[in-house]
Parts: sequence; structure tokens; C-alpha cells
Amino acid sequence: MTDIDDPTANWLDASFDRLVAELGEWLAIPSVSADPERRGDMGKAAEWLAARLRRIGVANAEVVTTEGHPIVRGDWLGAGTDRPTALFYGHYDVQPAEPFDAWSSPPFEATIRGSARGEDLYARGAADDKGQILVQTAAIEALLATAGRLPINVRFLYEGEEEVGSAAVTRYVRENAARIAADVSVVSDTPMGALDRPSIECGLRGIWAGELVVRGPRQDLHSGGYGGVVMNPLHALAEIVASLHDASGRVAVEGFYDGVRELSSAERAELAALGMDDARILRETGAPAAFGEPGFQPAERIGSRPTLDVIGMWGGVVGGAFKGIIPAEARAKITCRLVPYQDPARVGRCVTAHIAKHTPAAVTASFDGRTFEIAATLLESDSPAFEAAARAFERGFGKRPLRSLCGGGIPIVGHLVDALGAPAVLMGFGLPDDGAHGPDERFNLECFRRGVLTVAAFLDELSAIN
Amino acid sequence: MTDIDDPTANWLDASFDRLVAELGEWLAIPSVSADPERRGDMGKAAEWLAARLRRIGVANAEVVTTEGHPIVRGDWLGAGTDRPTALFYGHYDVQPAEPFDAWSSPPFEATIRGSARGEDLYARGAADDKGQILVQTAAIEALLATAGRLPINVRFLYEGEEEVGSAAVTRYVRENAARIAADVSVVSDTPMGALDRPSIECGLRGIWAGELVVRGPRQDLHSGGYGGVVMNPLHALAEIVASLHDASGRVAVEGFYDGVRELSSAERAELAALGMDDARILRETGAPAAFGEPGFQPAERIGSRPTLDVIGMWGGVVGGAFKGIIPAEARAKITCRLVPYQDPARVGRCVTAHIAKHTPAAVTASFDGRTFEIAATLLESDSPAFEAAARAFERGFGKRPLRSLCGGGIPIVGHLVDALGAPAVLMGFGLPDDGAHGPDERFNLECFRRGVLTVAAFLDELSAIN
Repeated sequence: MTDIDDPTANWLDASFDRLVAELGEWLAIPSVSADPERRGDMGKAAEWLAARLRRIGVANAEVVTTEGHPIVRGDWLGAGTDRPTALFYGHYDVQPAEPFDAWSSPPFEATIRGSARGEDLYARGAADDKGQILVQTAAIEALLATAGRLPINVRFLYEGEEEVGSAAVTRYVRENAARIAADVSVVSDTPMGALDRPSIECGLRGIWAGELVVRGPRQDLHSGGYGGVVMNPLHALAEIVASLHDASGRVAVEGFYDGVRELSSAERAELAALGMDDARILRETGAPAAFGEPGFQPAERIGSRPTLDVIGMWGGVVGGAFKGIIPAEARAKITCRLVPYQDPARVGRCVTAHIAKHTPAAVTASFDGRTFEIAATLLESDSPAFEAAARAFERGFGKRPLRSLCGGGIPIVGHLVDALGAPAVLMGFGLPDDGAHGPDERFNLECFRRGVLTVAAFLDELSAIN
Repeated sequence: MTDIDDPTANWLDASFDRLVAELGEWLAIPSVSADPERRGDMGKAAEWLAARLRRIGVANAEVVTTEGHPIVRGDWLGAGTDRPTALFYGHYDVQPAEPFDAWSSPPFEATIRGSARGEDLYARGAADDKGQILVQTAAIEALLATAGRLPINVRFLYEGEEEVGSAAVTRYVRENAARIAADVSVVSDTPMGALDRPSIECGLRGIWAGELVVRGPRQDLHSGGYGGVVMNPLHALAEIVASLHDASGRVAVEGFYDGVRELSSAERAELAALGMDDARILRETGAPAAFGEPGFQPAERIGSRPTLDVIGMWGGVVGGAFKGIIPAEARAKITCRLVPYQDPARVGRCVTAHIAKHTPAAVTASFDGRTFEIAATLLESDSPAFEAAARAFERGFGKRPLRSLCGGGIPIVGHLVDALGAPAVLMGFGLPDDGAHGPDERFNLECFRRGVLTVAAFLDELSAIN
């Protein structure tokens, strides 16, 4: 099936069930970085990973405390100073799993179930990103177990704040140049096109996000006594949110698309080859009808076009019974996914100005608390490291990978490229319908298996070109 | 100050602090009818009231169990069968008090504080409606204590489901004609114009309410992976809600205003005399600017015009941290406050048709669960009973009351009128800025005191005309 050395493949066949069981053990620790009550679990999940690294032969693996959640680091530099070094990155924190009742099996009890796409391991963090860290570390384990050594040097940098902005690891990367020095960073936290359409993401969207609050009366009012004489902040918020897009789905904020790069026809053709058409999106998501900015295919809308989404909105009576009130305020969390050459701060100013213009006089609207800004990242897709990754995917998945553009973002990637002065390669082994961030998150076991072979092949390929 | 018999006024002066303390004791029982966990407290609050009625001389007062929350009933028929009978109505259930941190003092610890409007008792239910039940029962207590008897017969019917639709008492009224037979029902659950502008509500708005759910993808999706290719249900909900009003604040639903009666110029002049102008509304509510349907003064918008308000809206991440998702669904609780001659079912059909027309193709929208419908009530304002109430207000507050139209609704009133075949009089002693349904609900102690004198005078006036 692949041309990987037999010892690695044989080791993997013999070890696979045990690796899946280990992953299940780790997934049972609810390392939800956004939840202050999970602080203890964050520490446990970090310790679990450091112990696993030591067990496979990374003797100096350790948990580094930070102002936020801990970092796990370690390195194996036995290949010698004349050999190249790869830095492996991933994150052990997970998104909140609420609402639990939307899951078919408990989110923190890993469960294997089959479906049209094969066998999957279901749990929060299965694909995003504990499963992918296991892919990286299992490949290293395989090589150390079968050959007793690695062809190149490796470092590991695993963080616990990717889902909440990566503050601690960003600082760590800036302040610990010697600890992270490497010729390439390998980030496994993205999806491929499909099992039979492997791809490597060559771009990550950035973000601008803020929480909008619309305020009306100083306190909640009886909707009988004041309905009709006080503007309802929920109505005002709806007007504002509705004004953010035109009927076609295009963002209606003046200046929003300034600077956005147009793709070449070659790039568009390569994205088209991913097979991400409307029918597939409807099948994956269950949405009632196709949707998106006119003039662009779905893979372009996801990867090359900026979007604006309200990810949460609330005010007044949320759930439960009826209660006749005009609420004092209404809130919306607004996130813009940005593409290269957009300035996040400028986008934030455009959105803020648009909202000011569309706020009715009988309420006030402002962004409450801090806003988040992360620039988009465009990655090299012609470096020797990228070529080594492409050949490794060909060995692991039997097909040369396409270059694609990721709709999500990984805050640290841009910082890693800057700090290392070396390319980053997004060797991700998820699938688009893994359900990351939603209920029933899953990691495909065949992606897991082939991913391990691919990472092992990558070390071999990197070694060969140096 | 008033021409009420001295014995009643003297008794009240001597008893007032004790009455306020009793009210505080009752307010400490969190009888939140909408909260299933407060079922025990509902029973306690009912028992407290029945015990109080027995203590003041209503020997047969009892708690009647129902399919829902208990009813408290009793009567004093010692005036004789040739004398008229008044049925007193109120409700001992209260609205939820969340969020507690919006209150200046704990919602279930009655606290007296002064302000520009005088001394108030702060607690959930202080004005709506436990305090007003105390007004009614304290007047009866005063007369029984000072005269040993009442000039007319009285019955009491107090329910625990007014804030959740009054199902049990509606059934009780239909099935217990003999127990509630009376020549007038007296409902104390409304505000007056102001302490120095007493008024009697002559209309109650009805309601049509339902919970709208907008559904998109079958589960929450990663907003990076699918932002831009799946319509966000929050955006669709915002579009729908924004379409429900035009820019002036008028409801934009076709057919919504059909059947609405225009007020006569005499009625408009009497409402204008209430002094409910924009400046007062801004002062009471703290809203940033005046608002409302053009062509109508605030008192007309509240009482004579139907309104449509979203009282709650939510979807995606509610509160807490950021989580990058496109939610599977978004919800809004929509309530229409209706005026006489509007058919609630027809309004519901108009709203449903409007929403169907304004729902984007890439989502679905429907009303989930049951909808609520209560017709508006127009009350007689030229009956002898109304005239007796007007004279009683003049004795209690020193001024003839204006006729006003209430923006809220009291589900049972229409049923009482039908079942008794006799007028209802809304002798309410709240103030518009009591904060009913919101935080810092309060009941003005001078309203309390004068209310007791007014109800006592009402019995006297009723007796005199029969």
C-alpha cells in the first residue's frame, strides 16, 4: 500500500490498538482551556503528554509552567549538529463540549464507531488536536523503537492555549530562541481534502473578533408597560447584524475586502481539484441549501475570501420560560476570518465604523472588553521542506497532495515562521467533516494510521535532502 | 388628607409597620412559578396567604390544589344575601429574578430604601403582585378589626400562575361558578399614572407569543472550516427579526394592525392627561432617546397600539469565551401585545406568514412548541362599580382617577368578566417605574398606605349604591 520501510509499518500494525487506547486515555482528560474550572485537567493533560514523550525516548520532555496553561517541551538531538532539526507543534487543549446532549456518545469517553467514511474515534479533541499530536509522537516512537535512532533531530513544542489565543506559547517562542531552533516547524492541526485527496494547507486565515453590546434602558423593563415606547436592544442588534451582509452573503462593511489578493487561475484550478463542491458541503453539513459569496467556489470562499460571522448572540430570556421583558442589553460575538494582506486592526476599524453608522439613535452600541487580532498567514509552498512533506504524503497516502487554503487559523504559526526564520509545514491529518468545535468530533483511524507513516516518511525525506 | 373614617386610618397608622413586615416575610418565599425547582416555595407562599386570610377573619380560607400551582380561596359572606359581593383577585407567583447581580439588594430580602419618589420596599414581587394582595387583605383586615364586620360580602381568589398563563385558575373559574359568584371582581395588579395622578386601567393588552427556531447545519460547525459556505442561522435570524419592524418602529407584518380601533379625541385627551410624555419615559427607563410608532403619544403606544417584541434571542456561544462556531440553530421568543378587536390567532398567522416570506433559502424557520394566545380586554368604565372605584380612589388619593389603558395583560380578567357576568375593576396601586419583571422591583409605601384606604373606601362606596 505504501513504500514505507517495512519495520515502521510492521511496528505500527502491532502497536495500533495500543496507540488508540492511549489516545482514548488522554481524551478522557477534559482539557478545556476556556473553562477556568478545568485548570487542574489542563495540568493533568500536560503531564500525560510529557510522560508519554519520556516513555518513547524523549528523556528531557517536561512541563513548563506559564502565566496561562502549561507548555510541554522536549527534544531528541541525537542525530548530531550537522543534521537538520524539525520542530513539532500541536495543542493539547480542546474546545468546550457543550451542549453534551448533542453528542451521540459522551464527549470525554473515546468511542469507536463506523460510518460511510470508515472507522472513527469520537471524542472532544480527537482530531483537534490530541489525535494529531499522537500521530506525530507515534511516528517518532516507531522510528526510535525500530531503528533505535532518528535520521534527523527533533524538538517538540505543545501548548494548551490554541483555542484561546496562544498567549503563553507566543511569548515562549519569542523568549526561547535556543530551545526551539529548527530548520522547519511541523504543525499538525489542519484537515486534508479527503482520505483519497490528501492536501497540504498553504494558508491560514487570520481573525478579528470582538463582543458587541447594544444597550437600551438601564435595566430590564416589563414588555407590557414599556413595549412600544422604548427601543428593544434585541431589535437594534438584529438590525445591526442584518446590515453586515448583503442578500447574496457578501460582507457589506465598507472597506472590508480592501487588500484581498485575487487568486491566479492556476491556484483556482488546484483548489477546484479538492472536490469541495456545494453538493459535498450540503452532505457534510446537512444545511438546507447552498450559500456563499457569489463568484467563488466553496474552497475559495473558505480559504481565500474573508468572512464575517456572528458566533454567538444573546439577550433577554435565554431558554426556559417566557418572561415579558424588554432587555437592557443584547450582545453578539463577531468574528472576521481574514486572508493575507488584510490588516486585522483596519478591518476592526471598518466593522466598528459600519456598526456606528447602523446603530439606531434610541440605543448605544460598542465593543465591550478586548478585541482579538491575528493576521492571516501565507506559507511557502516551494521550499525543500514543503517538497519533503509532499513526498511524504505521497508515500503515506499514495497520492501527491494538493495545495489548499485553510479556513481556520492557528495563531502560533506566523510567530514560529518569524522566530525560526524557517518555513512551517502544515502536515494535518484531519478531514473536513471531523466535527471540530462541534458535537461528535471524530478522528478517522485510517487518517491516524497513514498519518503516522507520513510523518515517519517526512523525517526520512528531510534527511535525504540535507 | 382623606375623608376615610378615622377608625380605619388610625388602625392603619398603628398597624402599618407590622403590615410591611408581614409583606417582607412573604416576599422572602421565592414563589417563581416558571421555575420547577420552586414548586415547594409555591406551596409555602400559598399556605402563608391562606393563613393570613384566616388570621384576619376569613375563617374558611384554604389552599386548593390544582394540576398546576395551588389557588388560595376564601370568603366572608356575613353581610347577608341581600348585600352585594365583591371578588378580590391577585397572584402570589412572581417572575424569575435572574440575574441576581443586577439587583441593588437581594431580590428575596425585602429592603426599604428612599429615592426621589419616596420610600419603597424592594423585592421581587413587591409590586407584582404580593404587595397589592396585601393592600386588598389589609383593607379587609382594617374593617373587620375596627367594625367587626364588612358592609358587603367579599370573596378571595388568589392564584399562582399569572406569570405563566393562568391555566389552573382559568379552569377553576369555569368550573366553580358558585364559589366565585359576585357582582364585581376587583383586580389589583396594575400601575397608576403617578402618586399624584391616580388612574384606573380600562383596558388590558392581549398576547400572541411563540418561540421561533432557525435551523441551518445539522450540528455546530467550525467557523473557520465552514464560515462562508454555510448560511449562519444567527445571521438569518437577525435578518428575520430586523424585517419585523420598519425604521420608524412600526410593525412591518402585513395585516398586523387590521381591526385595531382608533381612539376618540376625548380618549386621547384623557390619556394625554396622564403626563406620560417622552421625557418621563426617558427618565424612568434611562433609554438614550425617545422611540415609538409615529403619530401616537406614549400612553397610546403602550395601551391602544399593538406591539411586537423579541423578549429573548440566542444562539451559538452565549456568554463566556470565544468559540469559533457556526451554530446549528438560533432562537427568538417573539411576543405580540395585542389590543381589543385583534384576533390573536390571526395575528399569529400573519407573523408566521411574514417570517416564511423573509426566511433565506439556506435555513429553515418555524415556531417550536406551543404558542400562547390571549385576547385583549376592554373593561366597562361607565358601570356603577367603576364609579364606586373612582370615588374610592378620590377618597384614598385626593384626586379623581383618570381612565388609562394598560400595556400589560392579566389573563384571567376576561374569563372573570365572562364567568361572573359582572364587571371587573382594575384597582391597581403600582407605579409605572416599579421595575416589575426587571431587577430592583419595588412597591411604593405611600401607594401601599393609600391603596389600603382606597380599597376600604371602595367597600363603603359599593355598599352605598346598593
